[in-house]
Amino acid sequence: MTHKIAILGASGYTGAELVRLIAGHPNIDIAALSADRKAGMEMAQVFPFLRHLSLPTLCRIDEIDFSGIDLCFCALPHKTSQDVISKLPETLKIVDLSADFRLRDPDDYETWYGNPHTAQAQQTEAVYGLTEFYRDDIRAARLVAGTGCNAATGQFALRPLIAAGVIGLDDIVIDMKCAVSGAGRSLKENLLHAELSEGYNAYALGGTHRHVGEFDQEFSQIAGRPVQVQFTPHLIPANRGILATVYVSGEAEKVYETLCAAYADEPFLCVLPFGTAPGTHDVRGSNFCHIGVVKDRIAGRSIVVAVLDNLTKGSSGQALQNANLMLGEKETTGLMGAPLFP
Amino acid sequence: MTHKIAILGASGYTGAELVRLIAGHPNIDIAALSADRKAGMEMAQVFPFLRHLSLPTLCRIDEIDFSGIDLCFCALPHKTSQDVISKLPETLKIVDLSADFRLRDPDDYETWYGNPHTAQAQQTEAVYGLTEFYRDDIRAARLVAGTGCNAATGQFALRPLIAAGVIGLDDIVIDMKCAVSGAGRSLKENLLHAELSEGYNAYALGGTHRHVGEFDQEFSQIAGRPVQVQFTPHLIPANRGILATVYVSGEAEKVYETLCAAYADEPFLCVLPFGTAPGTHDVRGSNFCHIGVVKDRIAGRSIVVAVLDNLTKGSSGQALQNANLMLGEKETTGLMGAPLFP
Amino acid sequence: MTHKIAILGASGYTGAELVRLIAGHPNIDIAALSADRKAGMEMAQVFPFLRHLSLPTLCRIDEIDFSGIDLCFCALPHKTSQDVISKLPETLKIVDLSADFRLRDPDDYETWYGNPHTAQAQQTEAVYGLTEFYRDDIRAARLVAGTGCNAATGQFALRPLIAAGVIGLDDIVIDMKCAVSGAGRSLKENLLHAELSEGYNAYALGGTHRHVGEFDQEFSQIAGRPVQVQFTPHLIPANRGILATVYVSGEAEKVYETLCAAYADEPFLCVLPFGTAPGTHDVRGSNFCHIGVVKDRIAGRSIVVAVLDNLTKGSSGQALQNANLMLGEKETTGLMGAPLFP
Amino acid sequence: MTHKIAILGASGYTGAELVRLIAGHPNIDIAALSADRKAGMEMAQVFPFLRHLSLPTLCRIDEIDFSGIDLCFCALPHKTSQDVISKLPETLKIVDLSADFRLRDPDDYETWYGNPHTAQAQQTEAVYGLTEFYRDDIRAARLVAGTGCNAATGQFALRPLIAAGVIGLDDIVIDMKCAVSGAGRSLKENLLHAELSEGYNAYALGGTHRHVGEFDQEFSQIAGRPVQVQFTPHLIPANRGILATVYVSGEAEKVYETLCAAYADEPFLCVLPFGTAPGTHDVRGSNFCHIGVVKDRIAGRSIVVAVLDNLTKGSSGQALQNANLMLGEKETTGLMGAPLFP
Repeated sequence: MTHKIAILGASGYTGAELVRLIAGHPNIDIAALSADRKAGMEMAQVFPFLRHLSLPTLCRIDEIDFSGIDLCFCALPHKTSQDVISKLPETLKIVDLSADFRLRDPDDYETWYGNPHTAQAQQTEAVYGLTEFYRDDIRAARLVAGTGCNAATGQFALRPLIAAGVIGLDDIVIDMKCAVSGAGRSLKENLLHAELSEGYNAYALGGTHRHVGEFDQEFSQIAGRPVQVQFTPHLIPANRGILATVYVSGEAEKVYETLCAAYADEPFLCVLPFGTAPGTHDVRGSNFCHIGVVKDRIAGRSIVVAVLDNLTKGSSGQALQNANLMLGEKETTGLMGAPLFP
Repeated sequence: MTHKIAILGASGYTGAELVRLIAGHPNIDIAALSADRKAGMEMAQVFPFLRHLSLPTLCRIDEIDFSGIDLCFCALPHKTSQDVISKLPETLKIVDLSADFRLRDPDDYETWYGNPHTAQAQQTEAVYGLTEFYRDDIRAARLVAGTGCNAATGQFALRPLIAAGVIGLDDIVIDMKCAVSGAGRSLKENLLHAELSEGYNAYALGGTHRHVGEFDQEFSQIAGRPVQVQFTPHLIPANRGILATVYVSGEAEKVYETLCAAYADEPFLCVLPFGTAPGTHDVRGSNFCHIGVVKDRIAGRSIVVAVLDNLTKGSSGQALQNANLMLGEKETTGLMGAPLFP
Repeated sequence: MTHKIAILGASGYTGAELVRLIAGHPNIDIAALSADRKAGMEMAQVFPFLRHLSLPTLCRIDEIDFSGIDLCFCALPHKTSQDVISKLPETLKIVDLSADFRLRDPDDYETWYGNPHTAQAQQTEAVYGLTEFYRDDIRAARLVAGTGCNAATGQFALRPLIAAGVIGLDDIVIDMKCAVSGAGRSLKENLLHAELSEGYNAYALGGTHRHVGEFDQEFSQIAGRPVQVQFTPHLIPANRGILATVYVSGEAEKVYETLCAAYADEPFLCVLPFGTAPGTHDVRGSNFCHIGVVKDRIAGRSIVVAVLDNLTKGSSGQALQNANLMLGEKETTGLMGAPLFP
Repeated sequence: MTHKIAILGASGYTGAELVRLIAGHPNIDIAALSADRKAGMEMAQVFPFLRHLSLPTLCRIDEIDFSGIDLCFCALPHKTSQDVISKLPETLKIVDLSADFRLRDPDDYETWYGNPHTAQAQQTEAVYGLTEFYRDDIRAARLVAGTGCNAATGQFALRPLIAAGVIGLDDIVIDMKCAVSGAGRSLKENLLHAELSEGYNAYALGGTHRHVGEFDQEFSQIAGRPVQVQFTPHLIPANRGILATVYVSGEAEKVYETLCAAYADEPFLCVLPFGTAPGTHDVRGSNFCHIGVVKDRIAGRSIVVAVLDNLTKGSSGQALQNANLMLGEKETTGLMGAPLFP
């Protein structure tokens, strides 16, 4: 059976990545693509790399007939997303890639995003989209909130460790190195090639990055008590990739065993041999996440390194993985493509 | 029916690209992978990005039992390739990715490569592997010689034009911009990141690049008289991609119509709207070749721009396309993956 | 004696490059820096790499007292530049880095830039700023028009050859590879790191790039008859650099001797050993231009390759070189810094 | 007065960077350049970017007459350096850029470098070359040991804090992001453009990087008791730059004041406004080090970010700064060049 889907916000990077992935999915058809400011254009004009595909012309959201749509991917900016989703048919399955439904508590949302949430009914209903940890809820969900790409990376490194109680909870440091596509197709000076190439810098320091809200929510829930991590993202001159270097107190061997056990049956999470660490080029363009554990020379200290592609496993790949579950497809369909290297 | 194949020289970029592509092919199994200096290692050690695949351990060529192999990809350096291929079973189907069997005339080979050919029987037998122009011969061939990646790009831009007689033959200029993976995984100073990043240069100027031999052979054959082009390759700080800017005398409209007609039914060759030109990021990681035609302000002068990914359409993708034909598979199987952007 | 200068448009790349260069000039003081939209900010906020310098706060142009200024650099966008310059004191020495005064004929200006010139008095007065060829005029000039960066590169390769009559005039091809800073600090999608890195493309094909107007004007003047070249610029994923590959008919040895003779006493123009070609990394961040000549295998055909840094020799370095002449300083002062490699 | 210097190991990146810097020094002449494997070649062949300079031909070390040399820079690999230096004239002033004389204790040297030290007399004599903290000793020294580039970056962030007792000593984490030129001009697969560009990874994890020996030595000495930090370097796809993100316990305001006070009179060390952090592009190609301090949301936790150019302030710039002191020159001569941006 073929499922019909729509993608709202198809002119951004996560929208285009969804098209790229779905083009290789045997049971999903793209029925509609929206991009309000580029309505009327062909995708081949907006993204020439998709020229070989037969795709619907870009349209405005209000031009879409949702009656024939089985599932809708929402790749809109946050705040826009809650406005749009609150007006979509109540029975339509939705995978949202924005930040709007990630935080369950409306106060948390307002704290981190600076505006009151205007779609609280949907917020209550939404399931947090970290597939490997919310699989059953996602299968039954109508609305799934895709996670932040940084938030996903940090959680893959840490959730099993917090759950198993094998690391200290009060001195976790997540130092993250993020490629530039995570910032989207936005026209900002610091995202220009001339500004970014050959240089790199930390940003949103001191725990001010919005994905920290997800860490707080999830880690505290697992631990059963408030957990706050230190988190510093860095902008790296590369297009795709996130690498999290996570410093924890805890025995490295225990940390390693815990991660191996947690991910033994996961098709996309790969724990490397003990003592080795991955690079972002190992997962570029794929839905895989590689994790390594290294013992520090300082007794009782360990380092966990996790990498994934922010546009795939960190965003659109995750979204398709969740959609597969919601549509009754095999979870991995369309997502087993190998990374691109070099 | 599943075909069993072997890849000789699996520790280089074209070998790894073959593995990446074949991993997505439903009817081909990788039965053996050789890499003499890395025999005994797992591919995951040599190419961690392939870690998620179950692959044979790397072995020496003499350890392979070719009796169960349907087709062998040879991704060895030139000269080594002719030695190895001359000793392989005479009934084994072979796709060679080296330069050893591209030139039909042994004297031409010696001229361009500096050493006498030591496998002239196989050289005589080999079919030139530019699929779109040698399709029937390839289907029937035992040994197919993959083309040079630069040679393929230039030919896609020019063959139909020479055949149709719509351009002058004595003032063709091919200015080519080549990404670094075309040089392979070789340890040379000028291929280091610190040397190449942020800089670019011409090399092999004046018609000394070995792929010129292929241009001479093919263009002269089509034209029915000697044709020599000017060809300058440039090394660009990017990993994948070739862009050929081809300057010809001839009416741009005629040039455009001729290319459109020639490639109308080709699944991988895409002629852009008249007056527009492609970029290498439009085809990265894919088997597509995009071609644009622009009219110059100088009457009777035209520019043709062609792009492809040197490791895919320029090498391993072409090899798989040819193997599909030789094995009776659909030509496009395993090769329709969309490019990766950004 | 110390000269006081102002820089109008100091928040762009050429403005910042002027500051960088002048910081190392012993006899020039920066008295004023304007940037209308960023007036009131410190340069350290706009360009943190200049933090170590004591610089005037950015101001609006109308806040500058020009009475104490010896020379004014104008690094404003074209069209804005002619408006501003027509209102500056008539005795103020000016080096303009925009396109507004490069074309001597107002009709040519309108043809290439699409709007009538509104400061024709100044246009008549302006001297074309290609130092090596207009040195005496520049020394005596009040207003010097900096050349286009591409235009400079092509002219360094070709002017002596046209003047000496050693090449054909009707089949010149200039294939140019341009780094991204040539496009300035403009917020355009195709200049984003995610769009440009790892990819490259031709643009302004067919002779439509505005710098072609400069080629036409200068080459025709030298030749004493109309000369039109074919010119294709390409956008390369690097921050600084221009490389021109120039295809000409003419004996390579003659071409070489002519360039050697022309540039024998030039401090910034370096002709490489015959048969070798330069890379952009050889001149990055410097005021040098390297030129190589190679003989093609086709009799009577030659290739000239010229490289320079678009922001230095192609723009701000050239501007300072001209200012040195206009102020009675030694031409090379502040400009002999070595390139940065790697 | 002009000083004559020699550079041993002039064919590597730090050697070339020394030449670049010294070319702008008014009182230092380069009398000899050695490079054993490239002896007989001109620097212009090995480093075409230095083509405009008149430089001695590369020679073997044993061809140098040291009697007229005032100071010798040693830019050789470690281990080679100790062999060579132990045989140089005993009165010759030396600035060594290798790792051989950084660790004062021969056992420490053997622990970190795996071989016994063979020039222990010189090891005893050598002064640690972190100029800002060993200035008086350096002025009087005969042999100065240049620091590791990572070691310098971490120490600029931390030394004043440890000395002032404003941070905890048992939970310091230094997460470092290193550009590729720090690895030198070595032919290794992971340093190829095709492997590194667009990807990044941690390496030498768990406290195994050799520069950790310098941290241990220096921090313990300042603290008056053993101090061990956690240190993870990462290889970033850029040519120049080191960025250290340092996580400490301590009040951010105190940390900030301490660094401001310590560096108030330092010409090359710049503390940014409180709450802001630098990028590596702010210091590229220069001898400056920028440092920022940010308060974490977690009470009592602070982040210090330090950046410098590994080839300049982290190596050859530091070496020239030390040489200036040893030769009685002004410390900053030849080193005040602005960074290159973009």
